[in-house]
Amino acid sequence: MGRWEPNSRERLVRAALDLFAEQGYDATTVNQIAERAGGLTKMTFFRHFSDKREVLFAAGQEIHGRLMADAIAAAPGSASPLQAVAAGLEAVAATFTDDRREFAVRLRAVVAGSSELRERALSKRAALAEAMTGALRRRGVPDPAAGLAAELGAHAFYSAFDEWADPANQQTLGGLARQALDELRAAIATLD
Amino acid sequence: MGRWEPNSRERLVRAALDLFAEQGYDATTVNQIAERAGGLTKMTFFRHFSDKREVLFAAGQEIHGRLMADAIAAAPGSASPLQAVAAGLEAVAATFTDDRREFAVRLRAVVAGSSELRERALSKRAALAEAMTGALRRRGVPDPAAGLAAELGAHAFYSAFDEWADPANQQTLGGLARQALDELRAAIATLD
Repeated sequence: MGRWEPNSRERLVRAALDLFAEQGYDATTVNQIAERAGGLTKMTFFRHFSDKREVLFAAGQEIHGRLMADAIAAAPGSASPLQAVAAGLEAVAATFTDDRREFAVRLRAVVAGSSELRERALSKRAALAEAMTGALRRRGVPDPAAGLAAELGAHAFYSAFDEWADPANQQTLGGLARQALDELRAAIATLD
Repeated sequence: MGRWEPNSRERLVRAALDLFAEQGYDATTVNQIAERAGGLTKMTFFRHFSDKREVLFAAGQEIHGRLMADAIAAAPGSASPLQAVAAGLEAVAATFTDDRREFAVRLRAVVAGSSELRERALSKRAALAEAMTGALRRRGVPDPAAGLAAELGAHAFYSAFDEWADPANQQTLGGLARQALDELRAAIATLD
């Protein structure tokens, strides 16, 4: 077995999602994932991921947090906090191309079926909000407005993702996120 | 060993917090917690909690969710969504009497030191927001306003808790939560 495995990371993610969907998250072992990914080894798995849970989250969390923070930083100086957040959502949403929808549909079902994965998903959401909060603070947005704008952004992103990760949906994630953020903006006025 | 153990649940919680603080969450076993709680058995532990993590969260999550939902339901019909949320926060905060502050200070440090406990805390926060969202919907608050008001409530509660769980703090959690919610309300106006 050579040390270089083409696309091994991507293959491990796909294999993990297949097995979690087929036999459940709890019943699936790292060995099985590596084997299903075209005869990779456990050692290859652990070169990419710290544990079984991370295989569905590690890459996304890092990349999405960075894209979000960079886009918020790059928004025009005149942009309001929510306009900067919208730019961040747009940047992340652009990576969810239509060919990833089927993967997202299955990911959503697998996560919903495991309390361990649901908690990991909440932790990813919190990390994303944290990345937005930090980027907003660096633009000079004070607390608690920075954290609040970030939570609205996370709320909008996850509502939009839930709609997008539906085989019947035809819209882009970016469009849905924009719409969700506008709806939250309108809802704010009705809270008190 | 008799089957009835006075205050065994409370003793297990205290023992767990002591051990997590002394030797870390990962290094602590359920056997050690039961032993430290005055010679209880692992079986007694599992009569109260499903696993090691739950010992710090199970009771609070259930009670706080119920108090929150009941107080939101009992708020006057004329109360705005955020006024109903404020009533919920008040009801939960009232259970955090001053003699619990020292426990909260240590709990906060232990949770901050373990990624597993941090994730469990996020899950408790999500459950609390879920309880608020459900109670607001039952008052006729539409989506996404119900979820948004609930997230503002959770944000206010946890900011207030962070301030309260400081040995130097002299305020009540209820007062801090009210203040945090007012600050969020003011910050909303600056977002866009």
